[in-house]
Formats: sequence, structure tokens, C-alpha cells
Amino acid sequence: MVDVLNGWERREKPAMLQRRFTFDSYAQTRAFLDALAKLSELHDRHPQNISFGSTYANITLEAADGVALTTRDEDFAAQIVALSESLE
Amino acid sequence: MVDVLNGWERREKPAMLQRRFTFDSYAQTRAFLDALAKLSELHDRHPQNISFGSTYANITLEAADGVALTTRDEDFAAQIVALSESLE
Repeated sequence: MVDVLNGWERREKPAMLQRRFTFDSYAQTRAFLDALAKLSELHDRHPQNISFGSTYANITLEAADGVALTTRDEDFAAQIVALSESLE
Repeated sequence: MVDVLNGWERREKPAMLQRRFTFDSYAQTRAFLDALAKLSELHDRHPQNISFGSTYANITLEAADGVALTTRDEDFAAQIVALSESLE
């Protein structure tokens, strides 16, 4: 089952959120990744996978409790979106 | 056709080199990615895709000329390996 949450796709079994971010330049992509690394360290929480090229980053965020997505996951996802928007 | 070149798998159509690097910790993975970003800027050349999680990074390096792999690509791949080994 897939629905949409602020641009994120919600997946079940295993529970995760996925979203693709696109950028105008490599510099912008790198700024996003660096800021995301800082955000991750702040929360001591790292996306399960980040796949990126020059102008995009695909992020997979697994459920923090490993079982089901909660508002805690949605909050973290929303912060990542806010971060990407702050670079535009 | 796939063969092995210092741990890299060579693929054709499109021509690319792929390799998985594993690390003991997230800190080591991040150090590798940061150093790779610096190396990329130095050469003005970025891997087509980097996919990473807490303790691994999968790198896809496309042929610099977009057609066929050359020693130039192999040299860049070897530098990435040297970089990963310098962190161990």
C-alpha cells in the first residue's frame, strides 16, 4: 500500500518512507547531503539508504522502531523536506 | 561481461565500474564519503551514483567519455580504493 505524505511514499513490510529530491546543481546536492548528515547526527538517526548522483538524492527512511511508522518518523521526514527547501 | 579490477566489477553497455565498500562504523563511512567528495571536486568528476547506508557505500562510476572504459577511469577507481584503505 502506498500513499503520499508531503512527497514521501509510505511503504509497509518493511515499514519505510521514500522520497526523491532533485537539485539544480551538484553544489546544491552536496549542500543538501552535508546538511542532512548534520541533521542525522543531531538526532542520532541515519536514513537506511541514501542514493545520490550529481543532481538528485533518493532517501529511504526506515521506521525508527523497526516495526511501524509513527509521527516520530513523519517529523524526521518533514525536517528533511524543510532542509531541502531551505537550499532553494 | 563482468571481470574484476581491484575489487571493481566492470560492466558494458553502458560502460561502468561498480564496487561496494564496507566500513566498521557510520563515522568511517562518512569520512570516506567526505574524502570522496573532495577527490571528486579535485578531478571535477563525480560518480554517476553513490548509494550508502550506515556502514557501506556502493559506487557506480561511468566511463569518463561516456562510451568505453579507459585507463583514466581505472586510475580514478584506484584512487577511490586507496582513499578507502587510508581510512582503515
